[in-house]
Amino acid sequence: MSRANDPKLKSWVDVKPGSDFPIQNLPFGIFKTSTGKPGAAVAIGDFVLDLSLLSKAGLFNGIKFEASVFEQDSLNSFIALGKPITNAVRERVSDLLVIDNAELRDNKTLIAKALLKQSEVQMLLPVHVPNYTDFYSSREHATNVGTMFRDPKNALLPNWLHLPVGYHGRASSIVVSGTAIHRPKGQTKADDQENPSFGPCRLLDFELEMAFVVGKETQLGNSVSTANAGEHIFGLLLFNDWSARDIQKWEYVPLGPFLAKNFGSVASPWIVTLEALEPFKVESPKQEPEVLPYLKFEGKKNYNINLEVDIVTPAGISKTVSHSNFKYMYWNMCQQLAHHTINGCNIQVGDLYASGTISGPTPDSYGSMLEISWSGKNPVQMPDGTERKFILDNDTVVMKGYCEKDGIRIGFGECSGKILPAI
Amino acid sequence: MSRANDPKLKSWVDVKPGSDFPIQNLPFGIFKTSTGKPGAAVAIGDFVLDLSLLSKAGLFNGIKFEASVFEQDSLNSFIALGKPITNAVRERVSDLLVIDNAELRDNKTLIAKALLKQSEVQMLLPVHVPNYTDFYSSREHATNVGTMFRDPKNALLPNWLHLPVGYHGRASSIVVSGTAIHRPKGQTKADDQENPSFGPCRLLDFELEMAFVVGKETQLGNSVSTANAGEHIFGLLLFNDWSARDIQKWEYVPLGPFLAKNFGSVASPWIVTLEALEPFKVESPKQEPEVLPYLKFEGKKNYNINLEVDIVTPAGISKTVSHSNFKYMYWNMCQQLAHHTINGCNIQVGDLYASGTISGPTPDSYGSMLEISWSGKNPVQMPDGTERKFILDNDTVVMKGYCEKDGIRIGFGECSGKILPAI
Repeated sequence: MSRANDPKLKSWVDVKPGSDFPIQNLPFGIFKTSTGKPGAAVAIGDFVLDLSLLSKAGLFNGIKFEASVFEQDSLNSFIALGKPITNAVRERVSDLLVIDNAELRDNKTLIAKALLKQSEVQMLLPVHVPNYTDFYSSREHATNVGTMFRDPKNALLPNWLHLPVGYHGRASSIVVSGTAIHRPKGQTKADDQENPSFGPCRLLDFELEMAFVVGKETQLGNSVSTANAGEHIFGLLLFNDWSARDIQKWEYVPLGPFLAKNFGSVASPWIVTLEALEPFKVESPKQEPEVLPYLKFEGKKNYNINLEVDIVTPAGISKTVSHSNFKYMYWNMCQQLAHHTINGCNIQVGDLYASGTISGPTPDSYGSMLEISWSGKNPVQMPDGTERKFILDNDTVVMKGYCEKDGIRIGFGECSGKILPAI
Repeated sequence: MSRANDPKLKSWVDVKPGSDFPIQNLPFGIFKTSTGKPGAAVAIGDFVLDLSLLSKAGLFNGIKFEASVFEQDSLNSFIALGKPITNAVRERVSDLLVIDNAELRDNKTLIAKALLKQSEVQMLLPVHVPNYTDFYSSREHATNVGTMFRDPKNALLPNWLHLPVGYHGRASSIVVSGTAIHRPKGQTKADDQENPSFGPCRLLDFELEMAFVVGKETQLGNSVSTANAGEHIFGLLLFNDWSARDIQKWEYVPLGPFLAKNFGSVASPWIVTLEALEPFKVESPKQEPEVLPYLKFEGKKNYNINLEVDIVTPAGISKTVSHSNFKYMYWNMCQQLAHHTINGCNIQVGDLYASGTISGPTPDSYGSMLEISWSGKNPVQMPDGTERKFILDNDTVVMKGYCEKDGIRIGFGECSGKILPAI
């Protein structure tokens, strides 16, 4: 366990109770001021700490890397330095922020420039994403979908319990939290229509997901074992995989979802490191039937991360429509990565691997409107008297996630996205 | 029509009859000598012409761009300059190579450095590929697959005639011609097995495809019309979408092909520009039923490009197993791009959009072993007495493509890939 995780640590930066970003978290992101260039930062309380300025001030002198990694518009070069370096940076930042360390605390000139209010900077997508894969790893979600659209008695398809089903998604349209997306247009066909028609999506949905960011590449032909997968995972973020259910229904047989998904997906701006999440590991659900040897694993591979989804109306009226948890995942991240690479597929730094919709066992923990409203049959009642079967124009969907233990809350910030009317 | 396409042009560079690279072609690629750094080149006959050295010698002085675009390990920066510049470069190279132009011809010092034998340089992947999509746009191929695995009377799925079906592929594992790939391992399940088993793929196949390279990006939310699609297409190359049929069968429902495809795909090294292909445009197959308005198009949008596939045994015994043609495509590139972006999905410079297997109407024009051997029922007899249902270890698959008209042959070179035994 990293010393940066010690629950007893306190910072000289004022961190409000309930903040996602205590000194034990220190997630990495890319920020931009209204006048400056993008650069790397760590979140602490309501602030971002500019890593480039700290580096220029010599505060990372004991750690060997080029300071330019902090002066780019993505974290890829920093992440590619590898865990010995990136963990050392996180631990050094922790040391610098500890309440009784005067090095940075008493350097008022540097603090004035390097410690900026989050509310006064813009957060960018933290990584350039070379490849994006979306899994389908929540048993509850796959069961709900199978129950609705196929046979409740055989809700899971034959392969589902044997491998973490996944597909390649679109990297170009992944955007950072706060980016509005226009409702997509496309082909749909109702069951009673002979031919498809064209128009704006009518069944626009969110999918509550988490995604992990690859920190260590492999070469084509090589595989990653479940035991080594952790070395390749830099950290996690929240992910909203916007989905056009009616477009998907018409297009997805036989090659999978395409235009129903690639009009936009939203990532939260802070990557919480795997190391910061270490205290929140939990046992995985029992896997029955037994998986093939390359998918077996030892130890705790799931994470107890509370997840919430709010729908916010155009007038700002909010309702929490889901309380889920990342711990429900049937297939864990190590299994996903082992499966993805068992055929020799190479992975690259910055790759995003999303979990698929994270649904829990009860209706209040379902991770999509498709499930929450049960395909529109049980609309959600909003506090303003309106109802939601799916997402309406100018609604905003806000996802949050956090772990909590020993009085320490390690949070992910927000993954927020608004739907604008179709163009 | 570009003046560089004039069939009457002759070059002072010796171009052998039947060469893929006469002065009317001038495709772009990235090459590397054994001692030098990667850089951009044009192919002429058996030679590559180093564009960086020409630029440093001032031979592009009339065209406004940074010479550094030729000194990179991909063509992305060059392509991103836009067609007014890239076409001007192609036409300027044509002028420089014309038989009666002494500018370059008589500069023996420069020629000695800049005109190198293709056999003495290494070709690299010509573009960094931010996003890769594979379509499924040959009616003959989709019909063959549907006939084999579903119902011969309803071989095409309901959506197939209404939209160009496609899915996202894996960008990281696209390699240049000449790159050997290990036979992938993975899960498969025979119909008479209760549970899947793990091992090397038994039904390894090629897919004869072409891919177009995007030359002009769009912003998220915008669409490209069929009329404007040509502006966004820089050029084309040959593409072998290696496929593990047995892995695909078990994994692909419901989210599409994944590990069956992402262990490697092979691209030819030369991008033939859309402008060089202009003389070879032909009418598209009639589309019935009528397509939705956003998929309608005017003019000739297909290309008459002869395609061939050879299987070469480990001992070097070769057999041509397919003669197909790019003109068979039911959905053309402009429709593919219009469909891909109709929901606002953004495209990026260097994106590859592959056609899907290109099969013609007769068995000798089928574009995969799945179809040629009809799922193994009709093995191909090789000249050495062996037979092929699918691809064996240490076989090499070589794809070629060329247009021919008015005595001018515009070729693509080779897309060659060897299968090594599983690791």
